[in-house]
Amino acid sequence: MSTASEMLRTYPKDLGGIDQAKLSECIAACIECAQACTACADACLSEDMVAELTKCIRTNLDCADLCAATANVLSRHTGYDANLTRATLEACRSACASCAEECESHADMHEHCRICAAACRRCEQACAELLASL
Amino acid sequence: MSTASEMLRTYPKDLGGIDQAKLSECIAACIECAQACTACADACLSEDMVAELTKCIRTNLDCADLCAATANVLSRHTGYDANLTRATLEACRSACASCAEECESHADMHEHCRICAAACRRCEQACAELLASL
Amino acid sequence: MSTASEMLRTYPKDLGGIDQAKLSECIAACIECAQACTACADACLSEDMVAELTKCIRTNLDCADLCAATANVLSRHTGYDANLTRATLEACRSACASCAEECESHADMHEHCRICAAACRRCEQACAELLASL
Amino acid sequence: MSTASEMLRTYPKDLGGIDQAKLSECIAACIECAQACTACADACLSEDMVAELTKCIRTNLDCADLCAATANVLSRHTGYDANLTRATLEACRSACASCAEECESHADMHEHCRICAAACRRCEQACAELLASL
Repeated sequence: MSTASEMLRTYPKDLGGIDQAKLSECIAACIECAQACTACADACLSEDMVAELTKCIRTNLDCADLCAATANVLSRHTGYDANLTRATLEACRSACASCAEECESHADMHEHCRICAAACRRCEQACAELLASL
Repeated sequence: MSTASEMLRTYPKDLGGIDQAKLSECIAACIECAQACTACADACLSEDMVAELTKCIRTNLDCADLCAATANVLSRHTGYDANLTRATLEACRSACASCAEECESHADMHEHCRICAAACRRCEQACAELLASL
Repeated sequence: MSTASEMLRTYPKDLGGIDQAKLSECIAACIECAQACTACADACLSEDMVAELTKCIRTNLDCADLCAATANVLSRHTGYDANLTRATLEACRSACASCAEECESHADMHEHCRICAAACRRCEQACAELLASL
Repeated sequence: MSTASEMLRTYPKDLGGIDQAKLSECIAACIECAQACTACADACLSEDMVAELTKCIRTNLDCADLCAATANVLSRHTGYDANLTRATLEACRSACASCAEECESHADMHEHCRICAAACRRCEQACAELLASL
């Protein structure tokens, strides 16, 4: 069991009707994606053709910021606010979709973009599934 | 002229049709609100009646995370993505509205909540105006 | 292989003499600890005895911020600056040690503190080992 | 009076012997520097000669992360831990010094680097003064 799942399990009050498996998966996906995007931005910076990767770097940085914020929001359960959770997940899903698309367009040439794109798609999917379950 | 405005002025490429005054104001409002919320969460923690302020602390922390992420997204202009900017601003506006409402309900008793609520309302308004101008 | 390790493996330039296993482990430990601390702060907020956990919540929040920043710094390799990496790891180790100590003092009563303390100790150890290898 | 100073003024408990003017200035400097670095990284990305600015972008991103974390740590006063504050300020000062030096080397060519370097030097100085006063 991951630490994130353990923290969820030991939360002292009722978690409400939320789907804990989907929540736990979405937190893990956000965290993984934030790190992958931070690393992909840096890997792009070190490519000789960095000038052709500037949009990718920018999208990576936005996606990392939104995934990190979303992981934090999802890790809190006290005084739950469904509207805020929904708006945050929508923004995160949008960032992941943009970043996945951008990274996929470089995936043939840059393996870090391929791996990052996959992390973005997993996170986009996890956000969509959690949104659908709210 | 603030440093954020100076950074905007010296961006080397075209900023597109964006309203620079509204953009600059929104960045400043996000940054101010993120700090106020971080400090308000901590001030609430030090109140004797902290047990009645737990929802306020949680909302403060969410709002701080979203304002910080939004300030970052708005500070980038390379490879601008209107959809992502919009979704981010919506989430930030939602967080600011929730936090303002919560802090306002404690404003009579706690001056830090009154000041924080005002920062949240300014940021909510700045997000709304920037959204309307996109 | 974790996504963080895969991103390390696909970095396009030389990583220098750094111990990749220790680096990869430290990134993972920072990310895990940041999430655990964010969740532990929130779990403490929901305890009936929150008034006795305010120092724990504050330390959790500091530790989460420093672990997140450290994970980001360690995920970048372009233009590596050993002094900055060292100072960042020192701050993170200090935060993890403080938070572990604080959480351990509540571990008998609160399982989330016990789990969080273990994540802090793992991260403190990973920072120390990476520091020793630099 | 800035919002950060107002939040400091309305903190409900004793702030200890800390120099409030220096603290308030350091919070403001960290926040300003974090935003300037985020914007400078993006401005560098949009320069035609981005390939010569990759170390600058990386240092900007590290500095932004550390300044943001430091602003958060300094905005909290509950359960104050002098060791952690000191280690955090040391890391922030180190990041600001590195970033200032890097940006200064491009300041003649890129106005955004000149403005960002000045923000980094202000923050480096504010951290040093707060450290000296602790």
